[in-house]
Amino acid sequence: MRQRYKPWADDFLENNNHIVLGSPYENKGDWKSIFGNDNPVHIEIGTGKGQFIVGMAKQFPNINFVGIELEKSVIVTAAQKVLDSGLDNIALLNENAENIQEIFADNEVATIYLNFSDPWPKNRHEKRRLTFHTFLKQYQAILEPTGEIVFKTDNKGLFEYSLVSFSKFGLIVEEVRLDLHEYEDPLNVMTEYEEKFSAKGQPIYRCRASFSMERDEGN
Amino acid sequence: MRQRYKPWADDFLENNNHIVLGSPYENKGDWKSIFGNDNPVHIEIGTGKGQFIVGMAKQFPNINFVGIELEKSVIVTAAQKVLDSGLDNIALLNENAENIQEIFADNEVATIYLNFSDPWPKNRHEKRRLTFHTFLKQYQAILEPTGEIVFKTDNKGLFEYSLVSFSKFGLIVEEVRLDLHEYEDPLNVMTEYEEKFSAKGQPIYRCRASFSMERDEGN
Ligand SMILES: C[S@@+](CC[C@H](N)C(=O)[O-])C[C@H]1O[C@@H](n2cnc3c(N)ncnc32)[C@H](O)[C@@H]1O
Ligand SMILES: C[S@@+](CC[C@H](N)C(=O)[O-])C[C@H]1O[C@@H](n2cnc3c(N)ncnc32)[C@H](O)[C@@H]1O
Repeated sequence: MRQRYKPWADDFLENNNHIVLGSPYENKGDWKSIFGNDNPVHIEIGTGKGQFIVGMAKQFPNINFVGIELEKSVIVTAAQKVLDSGLDNIALLNENAENIQEIFADNEVATIYLNFSDPWPKNRHEKRRLTFHTFLKQYQAILEPTGEIVFKTDNKGLFEYSLVSFSKFGLIVEEVRLDLHEYEDPLNVMTEYEEKFSAKGQPIYRCRASFSMERDEGN
Repeated sequence: MRQRYKPWADDFLENNNHIVLGSPYENKGDWKSIFGNDNPVHIEIGTGKGQFIVGMAKQFPNINFVGIELEKSVIVTAAQKVLDSGLDNIALLNENAENIQEIFADNEVATIYLNFSDPWPKNRHEKRRLTFHTFLKQYQAILEPTGEIVFKTDNKGLFEYSLVSFSKFGLIVEEVRLDLHEYEDPLNVMTEYEEKFSAKGQPIYRCRASFSMERDEGN
């Protein structure tokens, strides 16, 4: 997803710092006032070109969405999509997910979306996977107790790894889908990668997981 | 898998009651003396025609295998395979897995294999699935604390369901494979169903899960 440096990107981001917020660490604990309402905050990590977050914000006007994307050259495309949409329940941050606890206070987030996260297939890069336990620990802190992680990917190895990582960390897996596009779901908002890989006939995997230890009546 | 009633089945089973044991409830707590050694006991639920259990018993002579199969007309085929193999580390039981706690004492089993269990796709039949929480509770009782469930299936819906069921019950998922035959694994022993479905190009799913709350160092 790395693209050639776009010299106009800095200018564009500066002119649109109501969309791509400049000093996100200052908003920690204050996201409700940033959006000017009490709606729940959902975040997406690795927003890429923004198709998912814009689609979701359109579908759920009473939820505030924050997209976090490391690459400046990519986030400008997402910002343009947000501009074009005219929606005001989206903010973007040109940040590294490693710093997520500098951005959000404890319990400030209701849902975390991980969409087609970089797989880092080599064992020695395990720590970089966004479902490695150091990340899960941070997600646990910023999520409200009933909060959820929703994870979609086409990458079999990353999905296998993540289910085990979630389980070992004590997360409760609430739903697993091994072929999300098997049946049409008009409520599913596709990401750019999802569109690309599902068009090739590859199965898309999804799971939802939470940290809450609520058990169903059977146990 | 239901087959026409085989009139010779009763005779055959009576003549081979050293393989298909007649009064399994009497062995509860005594499986080590049945096999005449201290080796760990692994059980398979829904043994079918026995290809898996015979293959495993050949590969692991220092493990005792008990196969549980509901259908008399099917278990005779498994019994014939055991006879032909000459192996003495296998016993078969013509029993319903619902009664598993009448057959094994607490902590008496090291591993439970569920292979291509009937999927019971209708919601109202959820209770019959061998990964429903009432079964998990029984498995937890008979398994030793570090014991494992190893589950293979071609059925996407049952696999999705089972991962969630395991997680909600508090099982730790240690391994997930979403296409077991992607790479050749000479140690994998195929079941009859596995051979059939993988030959058709369908992915075979597998997971290993345990009740132990041991966590890795990250948590
Ligand atoms: C494979 S792309 C997927 C993009 C988009 N989610 C989709 O599904 O089309 C992964 C994206 O995550 C971003 N990313 C990777 N690591 C990140 C991190 N630690 N923090 C924020 N973004 C990250 C990458 O820059 C890239 O844009
Ligand atoms: C779909 S077949 C799979 C057979 C074999 N495991 C294989 O993979 O080829 C499922 C088998 O489980 C048996 N079975 C189903 N429910 C059972 C139960 N409650 N207790 C014991 N066996 C059962 C059925 O009779 C059938 O032989």
